Amino acid sequence: MRKHNFFPGPATLPFEVIQEAAAGLVDYNGMGVSIAEISHRSPIFTDLVDEANTLVKKLYDLSDDWAVLWLPGGASSQLTVAPMNLTEPSDKIAFVDTGFWADRAIEAAANEANAFFLASSKDTNYDRIPKITDVQGARYLHVVSNETIDGTQYHAFPDVDVPLVADMTSDFLSRPLPMEKFGVIFASAQKNFGIAGITCVLVNKAVLPEKNSRKVPKIFDYHTHIAENSLYHTIPTYPVYVALLMLRYIDKQGGLVEMQRLSQQKSALIYNEIDRNPLLKGIVATEDRSVMNACFTSQSTEMDQKINLFLEQNDIVGIKGFPTKGGFRASIYNGQPLASVAHLVDLLQNLPL
Amino acid sequence: MRKHNFFPGPATLPFEVIQEAAAGLVDYNGMGVSIAEISHRSPIFTDLVDEANTLVKKLYDLSDDWAVLWLPGGASSQLTVAPMNLTEPSDKIAFVDTGFWADRAIEAAANEANAFFLASSKDTNYDRIPKITDVQGARYLHVVSNETIDGTQYHAFPDVDVPLVADMTSDFLSRPLPMEKFGVIFASAQKNFGIAGITCVLVNKAVLPEKNSRKVPKIFDYHTHIAENSLYHTIPTYPVYVALLMLRYIDKQGGLVEMQRLSQQKSALIYNEIDRNPLLKGIVATEDRSVMNACFTSQSTEMDQKINLFLEQNDIVGIKGFPTKGGFRASIYNGQPLASVAHLVDLLQNLPL
Repeated sequence: MRKHNFFPGPATLPFEVIQEAAAGLVDYNGMGVSIAEISHRSPIFTDLVDEANTLVKKLYDLSDDWAVLWLPGGASSQLTVAPMNLTEPSDKIAFVDTGFWADRAIEAAANEANAFFLASSKDTNYDRIPKITDVQGARYLHVVSNETIDGTQYHAFPDVDVPLVADMTSDFLSRPLPMEKFGVIFASAQKNFGIAGITCVLVNKAVLPEKNSRKVPKIFDYHTHIAENSLYHTIPTYPVYVALLMLRYIDKQGGLVEMQRLSQQKSALIYNEIDRNPLLKGIVATEDRSVMNACFTSQSTEMDQKINLFLEQNDIVGIKGFPTKGGFRASIYNGQPLASVAHLVDLLQNLPL
Repeated sequence: MRKHNFFPGPATLPFEVIQEAAAGLVDYNGMGVSIAEISHRSPIFTDLVDEANTLVKKLYDLSDDWAVLWLPGGASSQLTVAPMNLTEPSDKIAFVDTGFWADRAIEAAANEANAFFLASSKDTNYDRIPKITDVQGARYLHVVSNETIDGTQYHAFPDVDVPLVADMTSDFLSRPLPMEKFGVIFASAQKNFGIAGITCVLVNKAVLPEKNSRKVPKIFDYHTHIAENSLYHTIPTYPVYVALLMLRYIDKQGGLVEMQRLSQQKSALIYNEIDRNPLLKGIVATEDRSVMNACFTSQSTEMDQKINLFLEQNDIVGIKGFPTKGGFRASIYNGQPLASVAHLVDLLQNLPL
């Protein structure tokens, strides 16, 4: 029996996607080879890359100003690679301190340029998203659209006069976006659209400097991958294939409007229970709650442990909060079935305490 | 029916490995979750990383001086990351110009330090490996242990007084190595030990400088990944899992001595036919022929096309040479069954010309 899987990432995918991915691994379309056993330069594979590009452009309604890149290295690499590509060493880059991933981002960017925090919610344990109106001369504003550990999410993006660069690993492809506000968006696949090993990077070519006084290594230069359609080197072919299956799935469901409706429906079920249940409490300001990661605690660490044991005994896995946060984190990305959320809520309504 | 797959990479894997990988994708060990759907920090997965480290150390008989790292980005990233970690910008790095991958390597390293070629076989179209005895003051000597496009391979590594840094993507885990000669070895998985998306990096900690005047980005700093046992960020979990399955397979076969015996057996079958068949000719000096990629041509481009068509009609795929080289390249890595090589040789012995 398939568990109700709330792991924060790598996270659950629709079972039909998993099954099709497994079939393609054994024998791709009856061709007698695995999709993972063919050259990244064979037409079979390059057609899949083209289809993935087309689907991302369709889902986000991207103009030709945008390049869609498939890169290895994870969003963690992009925290370094994006400032390398977008700034001169003397440039300022503004950040909003929303928690763990904002901290990782500023640490990486500070190695490349003058990175600084405009505002922080650290004093309230990252329970909210600070509001930003001015970027104090920065070249761009880096935002973590969804703080996957802290459980906060931007529901409206800042109105500023520079492009946003967004780490969107934990909510990519989960809702329509005001693309005109963004310069670069990157997201690892393993939460909302695939397995770990591939990162989708959207680059607005209008904000990418043509030249850079720093010597950007060719392998980390966006121009390289734009010119070679992501095939400058051997990309992680199988993770790209699984991402394509997820893109087809999302498109078939009705696109990003429908993914947003489903996320709101799933998260409302959980948050309603958190607010109703006297044993539970949410840890994020209501207006900034994430529809991807619902974080909550009970009355005590001891009670948390009892609840976790009860949930595990009832086929829930991966719902423990991040070690430094404690409590619970129900991760409900694109691949999370409504039925699993309903099962979780049912258990929370019947805690044996 | 499964094809006889000679793709140069991503390349064929033993079918039992593919089948086990597919089973683990659908339901890992009857646990009700996919191996690709669980956190990289869950004990289930960290145990697999530990096992993979142990197997690599066992297979190469590595001392505790060595760290085994699992990194994303491919060997192409390591061409930049290795010099970043190992040199000061003023250091010299020596290269041997053995072909395509040596050229990529020196281009990447020249961005980081003073990279130069000691010798080249360009004048003879990379048909041999130049012999090296002195490194002219370089910090290290970079070698491409097997030039996968050109079909050459080091059968003895240079005796020099500095460490070798080896791009071993196309012959990693295919033979025992004189580890005392090496400082760093890296290899992408998709030829000899897995699917695309993960790179195994072996670092002799004794040759890794503790400090570096350049500001190595934390995500590209070997120290980061040594300290965190490759789990500083979300690594490509499923590619690591497939690599582990291949490590188990190699170990079960009898380790690297047996993989070397099999490679020699498979390559001898092909090279004997190339040398015997008056229609075919090898393009590499006999003593430097690769046991991983056997490159050959026929009498003309036209005859190449006829032969390729005949091979494809008889269930051979992926045997065309690299576009700039032409002819044929039979890739016979660890996952290539002897039966497929025998089938190829049988067809070459019965060309309808």
